[in-house]
Order: sequence, then C-alpha cells, then structure tokens
Amino acid sequence: MKHIYHDDSLSLHTDLYQINMAETYWRDGIHNKRAVFELFFRKQPFGNGYAVFAGLEKVIQFIQGFRFSEEDLEYLKNEVGYQADFLDYLKGMSFTGTIRSMKEGELVFASEPILRVEAPLAEAQLIETALLNIVNYQTLIATKASRIKQVVGTEVAMEFGSRRAQEMDAAIWGTRAAYLGGFEATSNVRAGKMFGIPVAGTHAHSMVQAYKDEYTAFHKYAKTHKDCVFLVDTYDTLRLGVPNAIKVAKELGDTINFIGIRLDSGDLAYLSKEARKMLDEAGFKDAKIFASSDLDEYTIINLKAQGARIDSWGIGTKLITAYDQAALGAVYKIVSIENEAGEMEDTIKISSNPEKVTTPGLKKVYRIINNTNHHAEGDYIAMEGEKLPEKKLRMFHPTHTYLNKVVTNFTAKELHEDIFVNGEYVYEIPCLEESRDYLKQNLAALWDEYKRMLNPEHYPVDLSQKCWDNKMRNIEEVKEKVEAMKEEE
Amino acid sequence: MKHIYHDDSLSLHTDLYQINMAETYWRDGIHNKRAVFELFFRKQPFGNGYAVFAGLEKVIQFIQGFRFSEEDLEYLKNEVGYQADFLDYLKGMSFTGTIRSMKEGELVFASEPILRVEAPLAEAQLIETALLNIVNYQTLIATKASRIKQVVGTEVAMEFGSRRAQEMDAAIWGTRAAYLGGFEATSNVRAGKMFGIPVAGTHAHSMVQAYKDEYTAFHKYAKTHKDCVFLVDTYDTLRLGVPNAIKVAKELGDTINFIGIRLDSGDLAYLSKEARKMLDEAGFKDAKIFASSDLDEYTIINLKAQGARIDSWGIGTKLITAYDQAALGAVYKIVSIENEAGEMEDTIKISSNPEKVTTPGLKKVYRIINNTNHHAEGDYIAMEGEKLPEKKLRMFHPTHTYLNKVVTNFTAKELHEDIFVNGEYVYEIPCLEESRDYLKQNLAALWDEYKRMLNPEHYPVDLSQKCWDNKMRNIEEVKEKVEAMKEEE
Repeated sequence: MKHIYHDDSLSLHTDLYQINMAETYWRDGIHNKRAVFELFFRKQPFGNGYAVFAGLEKVIQFIQGFRFSEEDLEYLKNEVGYQADFLDYLKGMSFTGTIRSMKEGELVFASEPILRVEAPLAEAQLIETALLNIVNYQTLIATKASRIKQVVGTEVAMEFGSRRAQEMDAAIWGTRAAYLGGFEATSNVRAGKMFGIPVAGTHAHSMVQAYKDEYTAFHKYAKTHKDCVFLVDTYDTLRLGVPNAIKVAKELGDTINFIGIRLDSGDLAYLSKEARKMLDEAGFKDAKIFASSDLDEYTIINLKAQGARIDSWGIGTKLITAYDQAALGAVYKIVSIENEAGEMEDTIKISSNPEKVTTPGLKKVYRIINNTNHHAEGDYIAMEGEKLPEKKLRMFHPTHTYLNKVVTNFTAKELHEDIFVNGEYVYEIPCLEESRDYLKQNLAALWDEYKRMLNPEHYPVDLSQKCWDNKMRNIEEVKEKVEAMKEEE
Repeated sequence: MKHIYHDDSLSLHTDLYQINMAETYWRDGIHNKRAVFELFFRKQPFGNGYAVFAGLEKVIQFIQGFRFSEEDLEYLKNEVGYQADFLDYLKGMSFTGTIRSMKEGELVFASEPILRVEAPLAEAQLIETALLNIVNYQTLIATKASRIKQVVGTEVAMEFGSRRAQEMDAAIWGTRAAYLGGFEATSNVRAGKMFGIPVAGTHAHSMVQAYKDEYTAFHKYAKTHKDCVFLVDTYDTLRLGVPNAIKVAKELGDTINFIGIRLDSGDLAYLSKEARKMLDEAGFKDAKIFASSDLDEYTIINLKAQGARIDSWGIGTKLITAYDQAALGAVYKIVSIENEAGEMEDTIKISSNPEKVTTPGLKKVYRIINNTNHHAEGDYIAMEGEKLPEKKLRMFHPTHTYLNKVVTNFTAKELHEDIFVNGEYVYEIPCLEESRDYLKQNLAALWDEYKRMLNPEHYPVDLSQKCWDNKMRNIEEVKEKVEAMKEEE
C-alpha cells in the first residue's frame, strides 16, 4: 500500500464483516429495517458475585462522532474495493437509532442486557465492534477494581499500572474504570487531567540512584516537596532505606510533612511489620506505610491475614490488565427484526455450546428491591410491553426452573435509561464522582453473600414467564427447520 | 474539578512521580546531567524461547510529539499545584537526548537492553512511563502472535480480536504487532487503513438471523459479494449450515467464488472433519474451512493432533489480550549518570528479589553468529567502549558462571541502531512489511530448539568479563554502604 491514510476517524474501528453485511443489506434494500441488538456477557468475570458496568461515556463519544471521513471512504474504495454507490450511502451515514443502557456504576450480572440498540439494521451492525471493545474492557476493570477494593476496605487503593497497561487507551480508560470501581487515586497524570481523578506518587528508585544514596536523595526531595513519602528499597530496606527515611524526617522535623515510606519489593508482610516498629520507636506513629509489588486481591488478603501493617496499596499490572482474566467476553446479539409486514419479529441463535443460545425479543431489566430491607432480591427480565404484577412476583431460574420463589412487597426498578432516541442524544451523563457514588450505594444495597471474594452466592437473574415462553417457542421453530431440511434431503 | 481539560497531548501520559522527580532535579540544578536508562524485561513471556520486539514506530511518534501543551501546564498548575518557574521549564522542554534501539522484528531475550536512552536526567525520566506502556504491550503481542504462528505453520492465521481487546489502542496496535509477528490478516478495518494490513471477514450470525434462514442469507450475500465464506453454525452446523452452504454453492456455480465455510463454535475437530467430507462429496474439494472460537496455540496444536481439517484460523481474545500472560513486565532502569566532575558513573539497584538487581553501565548487545551455519550462538552484552575479540570469544552464564563456552569463527552483529541523536530523528523506520520479513529471516537463523512451544532450550544471553566485573564492583560498593550505616548507629 503506497498511500498512507491518516487516523482521522474511529468509524472504521469495526470488523470488515460488518461492512460486508451492511453492503448486502443495502443492495438488498433491507438496511433500514428496524433491528434490536442486546449487549451482555455470559459469565461473571473473576468468579465475582457481581460486575460493575463502565464504558458508557466513551460509547457516547463514539456514537456522536460516528461518521465516515473522506479518507475512510477512499481507503474502502482503493484498498478494499467497495463500489461508489455503496460508499455514497456510507458517506451520508450517522447513527439514527435509539440506545437504552444501564448507568455507569450499575451492578450487572451475567445474561442480562447491559445496553440495547434499536436502529436501522446496517447502523446497528456497524457500531457493534467498537461498543464491545469499549464496554468489555472498561466493565472488566471496574469490576476488578471493585473486587480489589472490597479486600482493601477502608485503606487507600491507588492505580499504578500505566507502564503495564495494554497500550495507551487502556492506561487511561482503565484508570477511569478503576476510580469508578472504588479506587482513590491514580499515578497517571493524563488520566488525572482528562477525568479529574486525584493523582498520586512521589519518587522512584532512579532518584535515589541519581543521588547515589538515600540520605541525600530524601533530603533533596524534601527540600522541593512539602509532602514526603520516601521509597526505601533501592539497596536494603531495613538496613539502609528505613533508617535513612527516619534520619531525614527527624532532621527536617516540622519543615516537611513526613507522610511515610513506600515498600516496593521483598516480603511485604515482614518488611511492613518491621518498618512499623522502627517508625513507631522513632516517634513517627502517624507515618503511613505504602506498598506496591504485583499486588491483587489475593496477595492483599494474604498480607492482611499475616498482620501486614500497610496503610495504602499501590496496584498496577494485576488490576490494569485484569491479569487473571484478561477479557470479559461480552457479546452483541440480534434479538428482534422488522419483518416484511413492518412488524417486529423475534430471532434466536442456537449453538452446540448451550450457554450461547440467545434470549429473543426486546426486553427490559428490573432490579427487584425488597421494600422492608431495601436489598435486592434479584433481577427480572421481562418483555418490553409486559406489565409487571404489583403485589406478587414469581421468580424462577431460567435453566433450572424448579428453583423459584415468590416475592411480595417489592419495588421493581427499571435499569435502562434512554441515551439516544432516534439518533438524538437525550441523556445527561453523570460526572465520574456521581457514578462512583452510585456504585457505592448499589454495593450497600447488595447482600454481603454476593460480595464475598471467593465462592459468592449466585445472584438470581430470572426471566418472566412470557419471556421464557417466547424463548422456548423460538427454539421449537428452529427444530422444525431442522426437520424440514431433513425431509428435503 | 470544574474546568475540563482537553486531551490534546500525550506528554502527561506519565506517572506523577516522574514530574515530582523532574522538579527536584530542576530545583537542585541536576536536571541536565547526562543519564543512561535501559529498557529490558526479566523473563521470557509465555515460557517462549524468544520474544519479538515491537513498538518502535509508536515510540518514535511519542518522542517526536513530546511537548507539554498549554492545557497540560494549566492542569499541572491549577490542579496539582506546581509553581510557575518549574512550569516554565517544562514549557520549553522537548526531547534532546539520544535513543538507540533494536529494530522492530528483532528477536529479543530476557535481561538484554532492547532500547537505551541517554538524555538529560529529567527528560529521560519523563518519557519512561509511555515507553514502557508502548513496548510492553506491542512486544507481548508480537511474541504471542509469532508463537501462535509457529503452530499454525503454513496455514493462514488471522487476527479477529478487536471486540475483546483492552480498549481501542490495543485493538489497533495489537493488530499491527500480530501482523508483524507473522499473522496474515486482520478483521479490524481501521488497522487496515492505518498500517496497510490485509483485512478479512465475510458475515456474522446476525445476517443469517436477519434473513431468518441460511439458504436465503447465503444467497443474498453471494449476490452482493463475489468471494463467499459462509458461516454455518447459527442453528445447527452439520444439519443446516453446511448443507445450505453446499446447496447455494451448487446453485450459483461459477457465478460466485465459493471460498469455503466458517465454523465458530462446537467441537472444531469433529465438525471440520465432517464438514470436509460433506464438501468433498459435493465436489467442493478446494473449498476451505475457516475456524474461530477461543483459539490459541494450545487449542490449535490439539486440534491438529486430532486431525482437524482447518485451513484458516481466526484468532481473537487469546491473542489480542495475551490471555495467558497479560503483561510483559519490561522495566526502564538507570544504569549510569554524570557525576559532579562531569564523568559518567555507573549505578546499580539492589533488591531482595535477586532478579531485580540491575546491570550497571552503558552497554551494547551483540548477536554472536556462527559463520559456518549462520545460526546464532547466543547474545553477548559488552560495555559501550569495549572492543570484542575477533577470533575467540569466551561466553559464560551471568549467574551460573561455570556454564561457559568458547566461540570461534563468528560474526558479532550489533543489535542497536541510532534512532534519535541529541534530539534529532536520524532513523528511517522500515515499513511494516519489511519488519515482518526481518522477523522471518531472524527466525530462520534461530535453532529449532529455541522455537519449541513447550520447554524450549534456554538461549544464552551472556555478559562480557568487563561487564560482569563492573556489576560485582557495584554490588560491593552497596555492601560497604550498609556496613557504614551500621557503624553510624
């Protein structure tokens, strides 16, 4: 390829097959048929009891900017070989559909639609890849952050992962998701600038090396920054680092704010306990101990179990890459499409992998909240037009239907909000702090059993009878098709 | 934070502590001291016998654009609280140092410097985070792709991971790394546009659902696209999908180019063998079978062992997120700094984790190539000014020094090239195709023992005697410091 195209648009951030399908639809004249797609994941990440939805802000930016640039069209023409008439259609395209979505910071569970798109078929198809790319990652990291924060508790959790993030967007949007998920600060200054997240950090080993020894380095740093956290493991934590930090803190006294020390390697349980003693004996009972070094919820719970004296946790690689499960696996599936008579008709995808069978139809998700204790009894998925019973709700497991319960005295809270209506942006996105607080409220209303790090209880996500019947009917129809094909042979 | 800043620069894509250190250096007047940092990783990813360097193109872009914007400075002033005089210094800053680096597509091994930065101390520090963020991810994915491609062999490997990538940059730059690493195509159209990578893909399940049945859907697709790969697992692969694909291919005959079918779920070994039989019996012996569904080198080697009849592999999540090891862990460490007399003085970092001890000094990396068989004997790290013996080279293991060998009749190929010299860009980056070919040549010159997927041989990366002696001397000096501190107590 000789001509180099500029990266001047995100609209080609899609899979080639989406454009190929759009072409088929357009040439066949069905590109404007109303279609409904739902975005959901099939399995809770990390075996966690809940997930935290994040990504909506960027989804909105993407949709608002969705327009093919001149260079996009030139590339499609010259290098991929699309015809001019089809490219003319793409040229005029913007998103004209309706998107309803959960709010950022909403608790979300496997198999329920996080977000649904009702739009002309071709448009709905072309935005799929970007929506999944955004929501999959940001929801994964917000969930991981919330999970880690459950273990960190009232201590401070800081995001330190930029250098190990999977490229720059992950560093930035991953940090935003971590803050949304309950973290208190980040080391990434650009994320601080973009999102107003508090930034944190003092100095690295290289500064100690640049001054050859800790005593000089700490002095120099203290002279130029009032708030001091000294990194003590460049040469020998307990024999050089901590004693030098104490020495400098004593010498400088009230002229600085000696916040504490940071440990970045070695046995953090042992070192933090020893360092705590040394700081206490020197009279620095308020000095904090910061720790970092490949931390995650598992190491933190173990360090705490061993009585580690750590006040502030810097968490990098394992959070920002979701190291133990690096992808969420959310999908975007068509559930309904306009038929030739102009009516919506539901559609299903069957698979030899049973969990890959979709639930047809345009649906709503309700959180069923107990009016007495204000805790959630579970989520309930009903058809769009369905009216929920006001007094008694029968909830049953969508696969093991004998698992059921009747709920009374409840409030059914609908979880989707209008974001775009017929292409118009109608939502006002809460600021990041609000979404972060919203998550805190949501977690407070969730039973502790679902918040346990290991083997949490299974949160019920049930289908209404109507929804379930509709799914069964769709499965039957496919079976009939198989039979018809057999007879044809 | 009320004021919202625009994302108009990447220069704050750094950790806060880098700016804090820069401030200390600047106020102390040592910010322009010449410093040397090296970028390297400590462990081969995936237990692979080699890694593939990628990321240089984006590193160059970042360095060339390294200038703080007005909004960067405003943010630092208003929200973080830096003083005006220091911000004035940042305002005038650009990168004025020298960067030498391996070429993209170079084979790289644990503990050898991939890239080295010689620059004024503060500048070298401020670029650290972005360099690691870029190189860590791109090198990780190029390595994973190369590893998968070794197993795929002469068949086709396609990158299909955008929807599961860790945000948008990862989808784009990960695809570039995958292509560099030996993949043949991508589904991501934006990556195709930006880098000239061949794009691939036909249609999804949703198209079959939109037309209600495969027969109609395949017909419609065939009518609008000459090249046809039909996805056959929307309802029932062997009973509906494959028979319908064959039916349509027969009906349309030479009016289309029936390339083949795609399997996306179920038991790919069984289904591909059965589908192969059905295609062959119908006279489509040349039709190809494409497969995708959570593939990686482990599933591929197993499917092949079971005689799966797959011609083309679509690989998504496990490649683009490097699922089994989602971070490389490369670091950037200071190894030398100008002293008060204006001479370079080496520096070391010790750690209770022995593999975290650095190797001091400005160094060069040579690949020692056997002149008889043209294969690499190992890599050899020597001090910058050191002259290599021409006839006989003694190579020894840097930890287990009794492991050693003497090499004769060799060529020592230096692996670093000048990229920036005193801030000036002096390199001409090869196009992506060239770097991809360069990797192929490098792999051809590597013994098969290092290319084995499981338990490859350990490739020697040895230190020169001078380099080793220098490291030992530096360790001794730290020990003396510890003794001195003890006496002081």
